[in-house]
Amino acid sequence: MTADRSDAPLLLSRLAAIVGEAAVVTDATAMSPYLGEPRDLYHGRALCVLKPRTAREVGDILALCNAAGAPVIPQGGNTGLVGGQTPDASGASVVLSLERLNRIRAVDAAADAMTVEAGVTLAQAQDAAQAADRFFPLSLASEGSCTIGGNLATNAGGVHVIAFGSMRDLALGVEVALPDGRLLSTLGALRKDNTGYDLTRLFIGSEGTLGVITAATLKLFPRPRSRAVGFLGLRDPAQALKLLNFVKGRAGPMLNAFEVASRSGLDLVLRHIPGTRDPLAQPHEWYALVELAAFADGEAERAGAEILAAALDAGLAQDATLAQSLDQAAALWKLRESLSEAQKREGGSIKHDIAVPVSEIPRFIDEAGRRLAAAFPPARPVPFGHMGDGNIHYNVSQPVGADKAQFLARWAEINAIVHGVVRELGGSISAEHGIGRLKRDLLHETKDPVALDAMRAIKAALDPNGILNPGVLL
Amino acid sequence: MTADRSDAPLLLSRLAAIVGEAAVVTDATAMSPYLGEPRDLYHGRALCVLKPRTAREVGDILALCNAAGAPVIPQGGNTGLVGGQTPDASGASVVLSLERLNRIRAVDAAADAMTVEAGVTLAQAQDAAQAADRFFPLSLASEGSCTIGGNLATNAGGVHVIAFGSMRDLALGVEVALPDGRLLSTLGALRKDNTGYDLTRLFIGSEGTLGVITAATLKLFPRPRSRAVGFLGLRDPAQALKLLNFVKGRAGPMLNAFEVASRSGLDLVLRHIPGTRDPLAQPHEWYALVELAAFADGEAERAGAEILAAALDAGLAQDATLAQSLDQAAALWKLRESLSEAQKREGGSIKHDIAVPVSEIPRFIDEAGRRLAAAFPPARPVPFGHMGDGNIHYNVSQPVGADKAQFLARWAEINAIVHGVVRELGGSISAEHGIGRLKRDLLHETKDPVALDAMRAIKAALDPNGILNPGVLL
Repeated sequence: MTADRSDAPLLLSRLAAIVGEAAVVTDATAMSPYLGEPRDLYHGRALCVLKPRTAREVGDILALCNAAGAPVIPQGGNTGLVGGQTPDASGASVVLSLERLNRIRAVDAAADAMTVEAGVTLAQAQDAAQAADRFFPLSLASEGSCTIGGNLATNAGGVHVIAFGSMRDLALGVEVALPDGRLLSTLGALRKDNTGYDLTRLFIGSEGTLGVITAATLKLFPRPRSRAVGFLGLRDPAQALKLLNFVKGRAGPMLNAFEVASRSGLDLVLRHIPGTRDPLAQPHEWYALVELAAFADGEAERAGAEILAAALDAGLAQDATLAQSLDQAAALWKLRESLSEAQKREGGSIKHDIAVPVSEIPRFIDEAGRRLAAAFPPARPVPFGHMGDGNIHYNVSQPVGADKAQFLARWAEINAIVHGVVRELGGSISAEHGIGRLKRDLLHETKDPVALDAMRAIKAALDPNGILNPGVLL
Repeated sequence: MTADRSDAPLLLSRLAAIVGEAAVVTDATAMSPYLGEPRDLYHGRALCVLKPRTAREVGDILALCNAAGAPVIPQGGNTGLVGGQTPDASGASVVLSLERLNRIRAVDAAADAMTVEAGVTLAQAQDAAQAADRFFPLSLASEGSCTIGGNLATNAGGVHVIAFGSMRDLALGVEVALPDGRLLSTLGALRKDNTGYDLTRLFIGSEGTLGVITAATLKLFPRPRSRAVGFLGLRDPAQALKLLNFVKGRAGPMLNAFEVASRSGLDLVLRHIPGTRDPLAQPHEWYALVELAAFADGEAERAGAEILAAALDAGLAQDATLAQSLDQAAALWKLRESLSEAQKREGGSIKHDIAVPVSEIPRFIDEAGRRLAAAFPPARPVPFGHMGDGNIHYNVSQPVGADKAQFLARWAEINAIVHGVVRELGGSISAEHGIGRLKRDLLHETKDPVALDAMRAIKAALDPNGILNPGVLL
């Protein structure tokens, strides 16, 4: 399917005819930032990097590449963690950057919807919502540079999924360029539309393998007027589960985040991240960060104080503190948000982005810890993440003083142990980061083969020449 | 594709070998309830009605019919309003009733999830949730007889969509029998799972044309501990829109329903439904029914009283009453839920199940009313429905004293006027009832042709012989 390399100059000149010479990048230095990715696990080569400005240009690019059999690698803010945005080593691929499709097309506050292009950053989208006195709830560490297109392609999650869901829950419609060059649109501020298959959600999370998302209509929400952030010391994950269900039953949809971390994680943050301090007097084995949001002044704070006190009374936490100011709330969140960075500074870390049913989180953490301790006694699990969604970033730090490269060489072995527990508990080997190139083989080992076949049939139906992100996902 | 009729006895005996003689219904009287539908617009014939007991039997039936080229018409509680569950007149189809797949397979309160089979009625599913101290929010007029399988196949909506979404939002996974007989499963209580295409939502809302849903894992929610129901008299739909946004901004996710009706609708209810009375002292042109739910005792009532008073102060309603007891709340809901029945008793009614962006509801109602009055002065629009979702059941009652059949003969003309306004406003011609046989031609006239082509490609990929519900949707 790959084009003959001798056709490259012709393809490049035709691409330039679509987007203009200046939007076809072939210079090695200028291409370089588009050919690697944040974890430095993947680095590829490309025929060129394209920077179209309109959806129509994206469609024309696809039609041309489809006819020429040239692979197309769509790329947003290049913050993905599974190599889904990186070309392979062949040098035959066209990297399609959506960064210049960066318009806010429309904000309709009365319909609680806005239509934005794929290259708008998540932070810009959040700001556009706020400027209309609305709230767009997706929130990620990389929100300053990741783009809505990438968020959609990977069905991004983050810290507010428990209340608002992932991108599949936050988009009302999409505009997609198909391999044959046509634009498909489900854009619009409709809250209900039962006119056929759910194409919107089929494209969302398809990692650029079925079409290129060029724009989306996103849901907006009223802006909360009060917020409460609590930090609780816990005995173990079983207590965390009881606490979660206690808070859910009392806070209902006010519950906006329920994150957990082990003491091993907090220790790394306190050691490596300047300006952090333990907000509780004594150390605890586990911690939960709980956020409530509400729509009457002071309501979240009132409810937060009441629920925290009741949880302590009921023996569902060992100790707890409630932020008394925005600064205190930010400091508590910083403990949570610095976990990845702190772990990086500590040395090598073997990562897992897993989900199990929320009720199985304690069993998962116990069992994974037990098996790892038996196989690799000095490795240090640093589990943390979105307990409210059953999603744990079960990262394993290298033994103290060990050689980083030697430790990372055991990636597959440690993966096998952790994912073995995940599979026994009916879990997922990718909760929110996607499959990309990193987990493709693993997907094929673990996914229901009938579901995989259905995915392959859909891929063949919508991208018959297989030009879109080959080697990613399927 | 249809099997040769001489093969019928052989097919029947093979089907009996799968499900047992007693589960193959060929007697005309026993088949009759499965061959018509509630509005009496469609009536078909069938080779037999099958009543399998397990998903495996469903798969085996499909494999056999796929090989024989026999059309399969999946059927749940047979409450659908667009003929999607009714066989055609050929007599060659197999009606596949899921009514005996009626087990609650698992309820996991700690994971807020339950797995139920397709033939479980919605009311049974609600009860199973309640027995585990949880809430399953889907609520429809037909909940006593409609089934989870049908709710999934049609992406059912109802009165709580504003807070909880439609079935695509309420299912975590599905089990589906494919035409080749294999069972595909995404069942499980995972809140996040980014391992490929969203097959779950692709099958939900596909109206039995891609596979037969045999079971699903559904989301559960904490049970609210307080509830407030208000009934407000309004000047016009523009005031209703302002009120909606006012309440959303103050109640946030406490807002569980925002329904509207015109005075013409309330008049019909008061005339035809025994035991109803106008809860407000003076008549108003429009009404809103607003429900809040919360998780602390008395919270919804407190918030409801406060928000109602503030709305009246702000001139966003002409008058209002707040239910002071469960009986009063039920009486207010009865006014809303009796609208269809009251309209039926008044005579012929031409129906529309439309959606537009919430912000366009006032313009839609004004414009549709204006054009109808110009074309059919005596016809009486009785618009009501789910304003919070932008979904109006824009039903038009026959002129007083007119001949019902003569009026109903103008169905297509009146449809054309109302749907013309819908299209101008970027709306949907089926907000929640689906396409079925009733709106198939209309779908093909109104849907983005690129989206339609993508739907056809997916259909061909998953049901290559076209045995599943032919003539429905596509």
